[in-house]
Amino acid sequence: MSIRVGILGYGNLGRGVEASIAQNPDMELKAVFTRRNPETLKIETQSAKVLHIDEAKNMTNDIDVLIICGGSATDLPEQTPEFVSMFNVIDSFDTHANIPTHFANVDKAAKEAGKIGIISCGWDPGMFSLNRLYAGCILPQGTDYTFWGRGVSQGHSDAVRRIEGVLDARQYTIPVEAALEAVRAGENPELTTRQKHTREVFVVAAEGADTAKIEKEIKEMPNYFSDYDTTIHFIDAETMKKEHAGLPHGGFVIRTGETKNGNKHLIEYRLQLDSNPEFTGSVLVAYARAAYKMAQEGMSGAKTVFDVAPAYLSALSGEELRAHML
Amino acid sequence: MSIRVGILGYGNLGRGVEASIAQNPDMELKAVFTRRNPETLKIETQSAKVLHIDEAKNMTNDIDVLIICGGSATDLPEQTPEFVSMFNVIDSFDTHANIPTHFANVDKAAKEAGKIGIISCGWDPGMFSLNRLYAGCILPQGTDYTFWGRGVSQGHSDAVRRIEGVLDARQYTIPVEAALEAVRAGENPELTTRQKHTREVFVVAAEGADTAKIEKEIKEMPNYFSDYDTTIHFIDAETMKKEHAGLPHGGFVIRTGETKNGNKHLIEYRLQLDSNPEFTGSVLVAYARAAYKMAQEGMSGAKTVFDVAPAYLSALSGEELRAHML
Repeated sequence: MSIRVGILGYGNLGRGVEASIAQNPDMELKAVFTRRNPETLKIETQSAKVLHIDEAKNMTNDIDVLIICGGSATDLPEQTPEFVSMFNVIDSFDTHANIPTHFANVDKAAKEAGKIGIISCGWDPGMFSLNRLYAGCILPQGTDYTFWGRGVSQGHSDAVRRIEGVLDARQYTIPVEAALEAVRAGENPELTTRQKHTREVFVVAAEGADTAKIEKEIKEMPNYFSDYDTTIHFIDAETMKKEHAGLPHGGFVIRTGETKNGNKHLIEYRLQLDSNPEFTGSVLVAYARAAYKMAQEGMSGAKTVFDVAPAYLSALSGEELRAHML
Repeated sequence: MSIRVGILGYGNLGRGVEASIAQNPDMELKAVFTRRNPETLKIETQSAKVLHIDEAKNMTNDIDVLIICGGSATDLPEQTPEFVSMFNVIDSFDTHANIPTHFANVDKAAKEAGKIGIISCGWDPGMFSLNRLYAGCILPQGTDYTFWGRGVSQGHSDAVRRIEGVLDARQYTIPVEAALEAVRAGENPELTTRQKHTREVFVVAAEGADTAKIEKEIKEMPNYFSDYDTTIHFIDAETMKKEHAGLPHGGFVIRTGETKNGNKHLIEYRLQLDSNPEFTGSVLVAYARAAYKMAQEGMSGAKTVFDVAPAYLSALSGEELRAHML
């Protein structure tokens, strides 16, 4: 019998989750829940229902795990505690500073309901966090470095779009190669924000817009750009559509450390992703399997990737994993 | 209170474990057990005892976890089941084909004794296995590649040392850069043994030895060298000592996969280690902490890295991990 999955929210991430479910023969998409009018939503999975979010409460016997694909700013802090009272859930909550509060809220609701709620899944937080944890435990005397990119930052793209005269924008975060090389060489460099990443922005400006003014506003924007070396390109809408439609991303988690006699060790984890939402969706689906298996064993409460034994992610048995993957 | 650790076997790996314990303030080395005369053994940790292996059974109340540092061929199949009847244990059993049998033997003894036995820890099997598992679960439609090196293979070095006229030898396994690049480029190459790795051998020959004959014997040695392109250098004993005293190693686990619309993703995990035994020892120590914590919670039986939730490896609490590492 398949693991029956629901998706809450059908944006880029929800579609990425749907694509991943289709690649996992032990999982089945039962329903997509939306705040929109369900009749306006076309999904790819013929066999799944499209339902209004208010109908989720009637589907608790039909869904084993609900993957919540909302945003971290306003959706997930409300939705994850609410829906974990009815379902085993997964989310990708990524506002680092608020993770402890979110965890506590989800944990309380999950334990009351006897459900599992795995929060902050994806690649950062998620796979990058795992790699920081493993590497830090193995090499306690060492230094961590995380680099992001080359990839599209949606938050930075949105910030540029809010500037007067900007019709569309796409922002790429790019790790500085020289910094990466210094880290890999075991030099333990102390790197400023500017030394770690550069930013590259592609802008479609309105006709007659003051591009010099737009450029200045971008480069001086506090938090988003003022601490970085930023390159700006003005392009037309067609070029934007043709060359910047994707949402690639990735990055590097590197730890260098010493054991004794100056013996140095490097642990590097690298992701290079053509589609950030499709990869993140794939991580969520693997953890949905884990949530299902953990719930089957009677566990409940909020969990993060740190709390999930790797074997739970796999459709293979312990015997199969030991024989073929160890 | 510290986690009290014992080491069984004091070769390269045992010394690597000792060095790692010294880097972890929550752990304390209590005793090293040896088959040799304990009085002949000098260890680095002043506060720890050196005892004959037969005295281990009298130390069950003084040691929380025993790290077994024997060889996979003959030591571990005997020692791990024997000592898990008295202690929580960790080993680095690495004969892949025999892991299921070893697991079953350790599991039986561990469950009878109510102890934890984590087997096959290190980096391969170990961290590489973990990365194959995580990557395979996230990208079910993809291909795995594992490359080893540049590093010293002790088995291959030993094989060369057994050739007549060879006084000393050191063998390096080297990944083929072009193969790595083809994998990273997402070309999904089908690689033969010869296309993945080359071998480089440094040999100290006896005076008057037939070096041409030695070279031929190495290159034609079945299993070890005949399927590889091998380069051989004859050097003097002093150069061997000066330039090849270390035991560096490392390698790459790479998975490339697709989600939909041809979107490709790359996950790469890389280790570059100055000292294979010191790094392996560091992994064993992190899993010793996990064994202790899991036993404290009442778990028992044989485990592998697949069965250990990452948080168990850390000295930090769940709250601290979520606040700082996620």
